[in-house]
Amino acid sequence: MSTTRVRMSPDVRREQLIELGVRLFATRSLEDLSIETLADEAGISRGLLYHYFGGKQEFHTAVVRRAADHLFAVTAPDGEGSPLEQLAGSLARYVDYVAENYQGYVSLLRGAAGGHEGLREIYEDSRAALTERLFDGPVAEEAASLGLVDTPTVRLLVRGWAAFTEEVVLEWVRDDRGITREELLVTLSASLPGILAPLRPE
Amino acid sequence: MSTTRVRMSPDVRREQLIELGVRLFATRSLEDLSIETLADEAGISRGLLYHYFGGKQEFHTAVVRRAADHLFAVTAPDGEGSPLEQLAGSLARYVDYVAENYQGYVSLLRGAAGGHEGLREIYEDSRAALTERLFDGPVAEEAASLGLVDTPTVRLLVRGWAAFTEEVVLEWVRDDRGITREELLVTLSASLPGILAPLRPE
Repeated sequence: MSTTRVRMSPDVRREQLIELGVRLFATRSLEDLSIETLADEAGISRGLLYHYFGGKQEFHTAVVRRAADHLFAVTAPDGEGSPLEQLAGSLARYVDYVAENYQGYVSLLRGAAGGHEGLREIYEDSRAALTERLFDGPVAEEAASLGLVDTPTVRLLVRGWAAFTEEVVLEWVRDDRGITREELLVTLSASLPGILAPLRPE
Repeated sequence: MSTTRVRMSPDVRREQLIELGVRLFATRSLEDLSIETLADEAGISRGLLYHYFGGKQEFHTAVVRRAADHLFAVTAPDGEGSPLEQLAGSLARYVDYVAENYQGYVSLLRGAAGGHEGLREIYEDSRAALTERLFDGPVAEEAASLGLVDTPTVRLLVRGWAAFTEEVVLEWVRDDRGITREELLVTLSASLPGILAPLRPE
């Protein structure tokens, strides 16, 4: 093993710093994710970080956007099983993601809901991408069995279902009330067809 | 009719000012609900308002708490019909309330979600009171037919359902997407039994 320090391109270095920021973001709020913290953890100077990101705002935006990309990636349907099984798999990974990134996730929601426009845009984009999969992807191919026809009413209800899922999962992670992960997943998976049921032709 | 000015007790006057504040709050955000605006509308001096409320914060808290009381009152089950019909009636009045008080309601949610502790407390109390009715009240008496057994899982799902309903109604008021009020109400009323369905014994 060589101990020679590898000189990295600025782009690669910036990427690494964003990933480090995302890891730190898992267990702390945006307010607690300072340039100073990142500098300490990365072992580099604050000045260099300002060089890479311009400022705290840009740093936060880059970290939150990357965290949203991770969430999108880990919740991708795996192509195995029925649409409902694929949805259940995505939901299981969503639950685990929220559990592992609780502090940052809550602070993103709080910022987005509280009127921080930059965070709100990332949050809305992320939710739109996550729910779009239900209409255009492996789940959608047989989605009629879930009641997932692409109509304005179904889209509105899916938006509500996303709010439902977020609320239930955040609350469960905060306090599981003795409900097991398996019990949670059963009810979450069944909730979308349950919400859409009244729209289905008899 | 007498034109004599009636001298009111300070309590009655304060009550009237709160009610005026609630009416103003319907069509504007909390940020736009200033002591100055209230003074103009009530035709009294700012100094007198500070006398009644102490400050802007106390004025806002009094108005939001009263608005939450109104919401609770208008959505009371009317005791007519089946549990599902009573739920449908409450939901219809909730939809109309949000439509008529949209600006203030959105600004309350934003403040509560954004970490304003006073607003968050009023919002949480209000939601708890609204959903408690499902477990203790006329709807609850026959609630087994809705799947409303009082268990931790059902309570968690009801909390999620409240988030679902709020999201769907706010979005529909913002942009109805061609969905009629009747269509909206049909799907909202059916959503709670739909979400709870997987928990019901076969």
